[in-house]
Amino acid sequence: MDKEATITAGVIIIGNEILSGRTQDTNVSYIGKRLDDFGIRIAEVRIIADVENIIIEHVNHFRHTYDYVFITGGIGPTHDDVTAQSIAVAFSVELKKNKIALAAMKKFYPAKEFNNEQEKMAYIPVGAKLINNSISGAPGFQLENVFVLAGVPKIMQSMFDAISDRLHRGDPISTASVSTNLGESIFAATLGKLQQQYTDISIGSYPHFHATAPVVTLVMRGNNPQDIAKLKKELVTILQALGGEVFDP
Amino acid sequence: MDKEATITAGVIIIGNEILSGRTQDTNVSYIGKRLDDFGIRIAEVRIIADVENIIIEHVNHFRHTYDYVFITGGIGPTHDDVTAQSIAVAFSVELKKNKIALAAMKKFYPAKEFNNEQEKMAYIPVGAKLINNSISGAPGFQLENVFVLAGVPKIMQSMFDAISDRLHRGDPISTASVSTNLGESIFAATLGKLQQQYTDISIGSYPHFHATAPVVTLVMRGNNPQDIAKLKKELVTILQALGGEVFDP
Repeated sequence: MDKEATITAGVIIIGNEILSGRTQDTNVSYIGKRLDDFGIRIAEVRIIADVENIIIEHVNHFRHTYDYVFITGGIGPTHDDVTAQSIAVAFSVELKKNKIALAAMKKFYPAKEFNNEQEKMAYIPVGAKLINNSISGAPGFQLENVFVLAGVPKIMQSMFDAISDRLHRGDPISTASVSTNLGESIFAATLGKLQQQYTDISIGSYPHFHATAPVVTLVMRGNNPQDIAKLKKELVTILQALGGEVFDP
Repeated sequence: MDKEATITAGVIIIGNEILSGRTQDTNVSYIGKRLDDFGIRIAEVRIIADVENIIIEHVNHFRHTYDYVFITGGIGPTHDDVTAQSIAVAFSVELKKNKIALAAMKKFYPAKEFNNEQEKMAYIPVGAKLINNSISGAPGFQLENVFVLAGVPKIMQSMFDAISDRLHRGDPISTASVSTNLGESIFAATLGKLQQQYTDISIGSYPHFHATAPVVTLVMRGNNPQDIAKLKKELVTILQALGGEVFDP
């Protein structure tokens, strides 16, 4: 794989409700799938508490490590929403009332008078570009390579749509998969050899339980669809020769 | 909250399939909920690629930072399963064929002759304590404060059961929650004041979409159930006074 062509992303999920197990995160898998289509690869995800100095530390590390950083959570009006102020500190910029953000919110709720807490959502780090929120009005924002999105999945997804044309695209990532009822150990050695042969493709082997029977899914990922198609054919032949059933071949 | 009483955990999810969005992780929320019952709080989660030097770096950081570290994924027989060897390097110990692990596997598949790849799963860092796997035989292992579990949820859960009596318990964490149809901004100021008043309780405010209508759930967490019950009553009264409907009050 041409390492130059790989664009990397780091994702930071902010929220105690995910860490406590109370809320099941689904934003990582959504962002991962969407970025895949853009040829951008998530290299690392961190789920952290909504505590200012913790957010600052991780954001500053990620923005210097990965091409893009996507942050979800903590941009609402309550006391536990500390993401915007933390990002401002991380970038050493002021957090100021943003007229365009306020106008966006007023357009969304035309008859509404805003209290201090609603106005809090219009406080955006200086220099940030806003991210449209078509679900509930209050915008996200982008500072350099860092995109700050809402935590609520539906709103996060609407914001992701709004930024998708701001992202540089990498070489498209092609994937193929094959599932079998064979145990991993039966084909592990052959698979290891195939991986050494197809250095441009990453081959993953994922056992799981399909209904009641264990199944292994082999996933091939890389930038060359022809090579992937060839490898998939070889794999199907090998698995069948080993006496396995092959699903979705 | 008595900080002394808080036992912390870090969770490391190993696997490209989670990073690509292909597989939805559910292990974090399972472990989070179980640890809550033990008075152990997940402070941070990292999802990382199955690459040896990346695993080593994060494991070494986590094991010196948190009381417990739970790692899931990458202990199978295929070439992309590099967790056990990475942990051995992180702890500067050898990875050796473990007779008890092999016996556990043989007990599980009595008639089976093991090939090299199956035997690979019996290679365990020297000094590790095994973790029983009641689903598929091949064990996980514990080295000091680090617990290495399978990635497949069903197997991970069986391993978690097997280690639950090895964990020191913190003060039990009590939680309560209240949901309302009011927008966050309406009660944000009052909630902020309540948080300042109840310093022992962490109050989280989580907007989400319940069927078609937006709903906010307020979650209270702390070590003193009496205080939480008192706060919950206050909150219900406040939300109703603000004209809100309150669910599960």
